[in-house]
Amino acid sequence: MADALKGNMVVGQSGGPTCVINQSLVGLVTEAMKHSEIGGIYGAAFGVKGILAEDFIDLRKESREALEAVARTPCAALGSVRKKPTPDECARIFDVFRAHDVRYYFYIGGNDSAETAFIVNDIARQANYDIKVFHVPKTIDNDLLVTDHCPGYGTAARFVALALLGDDRDNRSLPGVKIDVVMGRHAGFLTAAAALGRTKDDDGPHLVYVPERPFSEAQFVRDVDEVNKRLGRCIVAVSEGISDASGKPILETKEKDSHGNVQLSGTGALGDYLSDIVKKNLGEKLRVRSDTFGYLQRSFPTIVSEVDAAEARRVGEEAVRFAVGADRSGSVAMRRVGHGRNYRVETFLTPLDSVAKKTKSLDAAFIAPAGNDVTRAFVEYAAPLAGPLFEPGRLAGARVPKRLAT
Amino acid sequence: MADALKGNMVVGQSGGPTCVINQSLVGLVTEAMKHSEIGGIYGAAFGVKGILAEDFIDLRKESREALEAVARTPCAALGSVRKKPTPDECARIFDVFRAHDVRYYFYIGGNDSAETAFIVNDIARQANYDIKVFHVPKTIDNDLLVTDHCPGYGTAARFVALALLGDDRDNRSLPGVKIDVVMGRHAGFLTAAAALGRTKDDDGPHLVYVPERPFSEAQFVRDVDEVNKRLGRCIVAVSEGISDASGKPILETKEKDSHGNVQLSGTGALGDYLSDIVKKNLGEKLRVRSDTFGYLQRSFPTIVSEVDAAEARRVGEEAVRFAVGADRSGSVAMRRVGHGRNYRVETFLTPLDSVAKKTKSLDAAFIAPAGNDVTRAFVEYAAPLAGPLFEPGRLAGARVPKRLAT
Repeated sequence: MADALKGNMVVGQSGGPTCVINQSLVGLVTEAMKHSEIGGIYGAAFGVKGILAEDFIDLRKESREALEAVARTPCAALGSVRKKPTPDECARIFDVFRAHDVRYYFYIGGNDSAETAFIVNDIARQANYDIKVFHVPKTIDNDLLVTDHCPGYGTAARFVALALLGDDRDNRSLPGVKIDVVMGRHAGFLTAAAALGRTKDDDGPHLVYVPERPFSEAQFVRDVDEVNKRLGRCIVAVSEGISDASGKPILETKEKDSHGNVQLSGTGALGDYLSDIVKKNLGEKLRVRSDTFGYLQRSFPTIVSEVDAAEARRVGEEAVRFAVGADRSGSVAMRRVGHGRNYRVETFLTPLDSVAKKTKSLDAAFIAPAGNDVTRAFVEYAAPLAGPLFEPGRLAGARVPKRLAT
Repeated sequence: MADALKGNMVVGQSGGPTCVINQSLVGLVTEAMKHSEIGGIYGAAFGVKGILAEDFIDLRKESREALEAVARTPCAALGSVRKKPTPDECARIFDVFRAHDVRYYFYIGGNDSAETAFIVNDIARQANYDIKVFHVPKTIDNDLLVTDHCPGYGTAARFVALALLGDDRDNRSLPGVKIDVVMGRHAGFLTAAAALGRTKDDDGPHLVYVPERPFSEAQFVRDVDEVNKRLGRCIVAVSEGISDASGKPILETKEKDSHGNVQLSGTGALGDYLSDIVKKNLGEKLRVRSDTFGYLQRSFPTIVSEVDAAEARRVGEEAVRFAVGADRSGSVAMRRVGHGRNYRVETFLTPLDSVAKKTKSLDAAFIAPAGNDVTRAFVEYAAPLAGPLFEPGRLAGARVPKRLAT
């Protein structure tokens, strides 16, 4: 290994927020303070937008108390952005880094952020500018390649699982068909998490539809009818991104972000549409309701998964250790080395381009053959990430003998 | 007072669930066990529907552990119903009560439930059948007359306040206009609770629209524009039940329940509609999103307000004490006798017909003169009910000097 690279560091946050994205930020900052190679610790305001505008926050000036409070606070404290820099902007990023003697660049985000990091790294290499560039994983979608799972997913999964636990009690109180629309455009991990709180055979959700399988409206109606006839109620968890057999989304809005991703969140249209289908086919008198969980899934405070928070912190810290210890750039990933009650991960560095652009889908082994539920294997995969949930109380319900003719 | 009335008791739960409705149930049951006047403790399955079907759960057979677990569990453990009994059904209720020697009837619910209790009480009196009938208040809408506030509201208010605290961080991360649609058909208490987490001047929600004030779409657009120009972002909390100056709801669906209430929940249509108005007037490029919080507001577990849980328990216990101690029927109400840090309530009995049918709206003193925010008086009223919230961490944000020309 060559002499240690000395200079300033920049950290940015990108893409949709999570409840633990600031744990990674604070992990990066507190670990960086331990290494003399790293001078200034700069936070880019609103990701690459702040880098382009030279809008840097001096994170060495933050108190330890402020940093720890920020770590517990949902959503990007530095501000985030959904922006894929153009070639001109990439050149500008490089100019800014050079002007500020930035030698370490950490970008916390999803696969789009890994792609940005990869491009910046590439430009620097072409210019023979010494910089180490690291991607720190973050996404509630849990769709990054290589890593076992992504920081941010566990808490979002916990929110969805708790929401379904409550909704199952609600639906038992006032029976009917309930459709819950969950975030996750192409990957069904978050929708699948709806099933994590089930402990009894008749607990909802009774049907789970992920975007990895084609969605048939006719089969959906048959599934709902079967459950509703059997239990007198039916809870459905469905991904916002479900598509038909030809790959056409069941419902989509027109707006796209600069990475070309269609915006589906923030609207109840899919839930309303599916409710209408159920009513039209199973009867207008049937009580059918829908909820679209929306942004609460990535921002609701006080329900953080402890495992998720600790891992988000750790990938931030490890990124700095890799940066000062290894002579290469990369993305921090997790490998599961203990399972169930012995759940444990170790971290490793994977090349930036192994994470950039492409995304991961739910394993086929995690989806029930009928395509309307998850498997035990999925629950074993995701349960440790969401952490212990809530065990609902239930009445034994012994009946008093009747005394009247009906 | 005459000799103590001896016989069995029936308890039912009615209307939309809350997170603490089972605290009232368990308060009733555990207190009833202390009084020898009360024999059988029967839970009506699904409210009046269970009474009509003689479907009673023997609550004396439930273990203390099961009852305590149920108390902590959201939504009606006995099952609930939205049903106003017909005159024939009221006669049947009375027959069932007589057949089972029911002398105490407790109905946990909103004003519709108080009305049902009042009718049952009236029929019994006309037939010279000795029974004491009690309404135990419950509603996330907080719209019952007489009582200072309603059990169930505090936790729903807490959910909404926490959701907005998270959403404010989300909106700071990725700025834009965000519209959050909150439950509450005619009363704005729950929508107003969106403001409870604000601690800094620029904290969201920046605009709060309650159904007590006519909603002007033109003024709404001007309000959003003003905030967005000033802060570069804008969070709106709006009641699902807002109406225009003529009293016509901004958006309504066709379905009505048997009490004649229009169903507005479970759809994202109002949020989508308001988003479209903003875009059409302020520019299609503006990032505008909406969320409709839906049933999570009344069922999400693990975020219960301790004050709310304790009060829900207490009104259940007090209902039994009033039942065995007072020679009349009634509805249990709360009076606030201590404020702020000395917050404290006492309970009292109010006639059933003082609570039945009519509902309460948000005090004029709780709504800002411009009609787009709440007042300090509202926050003082509601904050003790929701309990301590979440204090977000914030970066001081000292800037690094720029080195390049822009």
